[in-house]
Amino acid sequence: MQEVKPVVLGVDVGATKILVGYIDSDGTVPLSRRYTIERSNRVSTIASIKTAITDFLEIPCCAQSPQAIGVGLPGLVDAITGTWMQATNLPITSPVDLTAQLRENFKLPVAIDNDVHAATLAELHLGSGCKTRDFIYLNVGTGISAGLVCNGQLVRGANNCAGEFGHTSVDMNGVACECGSHGCLEPIASGGGILAQVRALLPEFPTSYLRNFLKPDQLTASLVFQAADNGDPLAIEVSERAIKTLGFALINLIVLLNPSLIICGGGVMVDGWMIKQLDNYIAVHALPFVYQSLQGIVLSTLKADQVGLLGASILAWKSIGKI
Amino acid sequence: MQEVKPVVLGVDVGATKILVGYIDSDGTVPLSRRYTIERSNRVSTIASIKTAITDFLEIPCCAQSPQAIGVGLPGLVDAITGTWMQATNLPITSPVDLTAQLRENFKLPVAIDNDVHAATLAELHLGSGCKTRDFIYLNVGTGISAGLVCNGQLVRGANNCAGEFGHTSVDMNGVACECGSHGCLEPIASGGGILAQVRALLPEFPTSYLRNFLKPDQLTASLVFQAADNGDPLAIEVSERAIKTLGFALINLIVLLNPSLIICGGGVMVDGWMIKQLDNYIAVHALPFVYQSLQGIVLSTLKADQVGLLGASILAWKSIGKI
Repeated sequence: MQEVKPVVLGVDVGATKILVGYIDSDGTVPLSRRYTIERSNRVSTIASIKTAITDFLEIPCCAQSPQAIGVGLPGLVDAITGTWMQATNLPITSPVDLTAQLRENFKLPVAIDNDVHAATLAELHLGSGCKTRDFIYLNVGTGISAGLVCNGQLVRGANNCAGEFGHTSVDMNGVACECGSHGCLEPIASGGGILAQVRALLPEFPTSYLRNFLKPDQLTASLVFQAADNGDPLAIEVSERAIKTLGFALINLIVLLNPSLIICGGGVMVDGWMIKQLDNYIAVHALPFVYQSLQGIVLSTLKADQVGLLGASILAWKSIGKI
Repeated sequence: MQEVKPVVLGVDVGATKILVGYIDSDGTVPLSRRYTIERSNRVSTIASIKTAITDFLEIPCCAQSPQAIGVGLPGLVDAITGTWMQATNLPITSPVDLTAQLRENFKLPVAIDNDVHAATLAELHLGSGCKTRDFIYLNVGTGISAGLVCNGQLVRGANNCAGEFGHTSVDMNGVACECGSHGCLEPIASGGGILAQVRALLPEFPTSYLRNFLKPDQLTASLVFQAADNGDPLAIEVSERAIKTLGFALINLIVLLNPSLIICGGGVMVDGWMIKQLDNYIAVHALPFVYQSLQGIVLSTLKADQVGLLGASILAWKSIGKI
């Protein structure tokens, strides 16, 4: 008879969905389900997270109940008090004591954290990061952020908001960012930024191949990269700027933190194009002694659609002292 | 009768001097002496370090022999194998097994490390850093570097060369640096960089007050800052560029690491001018949530001429498990 492994409940909250799943300590996900997140106001958003968990727990599945709940959330999270402080892409503008509320509702230990911190913990415990004590988890999707692991520990910072790499800049005289700074990486090299630049520049490139993909959800970063490879001047301009800017910023980061590995995740990284280009850029432009200690810039080995759940599971296992 | 406190021997090796001293566990320095470092070749440099220690140990002073030796060194140091890998301002171009040599010579436990890492450990154990788990030790002297403390631990990186802040850049299209990159902070905002810029720009500002200080060792960063306060256009141009560039780079660092404190050291920081200007710049330009967690940008409380010795002493105490 097969041994039934203990599981935790992982919840991965994003701007457009809630993913709920069981995860065992090896990082296997026996069951997961996707739910809609309510975005109209703070109360309905929190209610939709609770409803998703309640519904999921009623699915007949595992022989065991989950031992704890872990939740990865966008935005600013106080992981110590268990408070979701704020999010820019969901209507969370004042603090929510989410850990206390979920603990009360589901009578289980609960831990919450920022989603990129959670994903970085997944890389550290279940991914390529388990082989090294110093790595950067670079997430490029709609936005850009980085999870920093130094001395085998996630760098959280004083307010648990370390890693906002997307709002660092390597061009102090660059274009104003909506955050108030200038030349930030996010509008130049994130998925959202790349698509916005393509749309903004199309009038200057009226014959661009990309003009055929302007309906919502048609244009993707991957399509822009393919078009660049095929010689499309608009795609080349936007993607070269993204690579040069992000590559230069990564060299700064390598000089500063001296990591042995950069692990890439997020929707824009999945096709491997950006990783190959960044690797080339860094190889040519980084100081030899810095590049020497870098073993590679690689795609995460964790499944892209599971890394959020896996990160949430690490929070849960940690909350009951099992990691 | 006064208790005699145990001491270690600290050695602070710089480009122009060797400072040797006894240090007790409270960071008191009962005796120190300055020696000349030989710079003609690798063998004579190492010999002059040994001679300085031998001479110092012969001074009748403490009732107790030192329990261990700690050495802070410029350049790249492998602290685990105890190897001085290289230095750019001393003739160390190939690895020296300095720990083994000193242990053999002096029959004491020996630990070596990079000087800025050692100074950061001094801040962590004996300075303002002992009150926080996340701080940046920003050293601006002839060059620029930073010691990063995250989660209460010094960030060393994979090759023990984390913290090369002076060769990060916030202007990817900036002037070429001798390191191979562009727009690096060091030639713009370090003491050496500020003086070099003043000298280079003097022909454009022939009536500058600073023209009176061109003999070797006359011109200092502090003098440039005073001249800027007095309205000297050359001094204003150079010092404003330094503040704007270093301030912008510090905001990047704060966004990335979310520290609660920036502790400043190094010759250029001692007069407090740069700290005040950087504080102003950051207050105006940093994102509110980032600045909120930063308690301050402050001058080190450790004596500027002792911090190297204190850092070396922490290495020594650590080597015998007493910290």
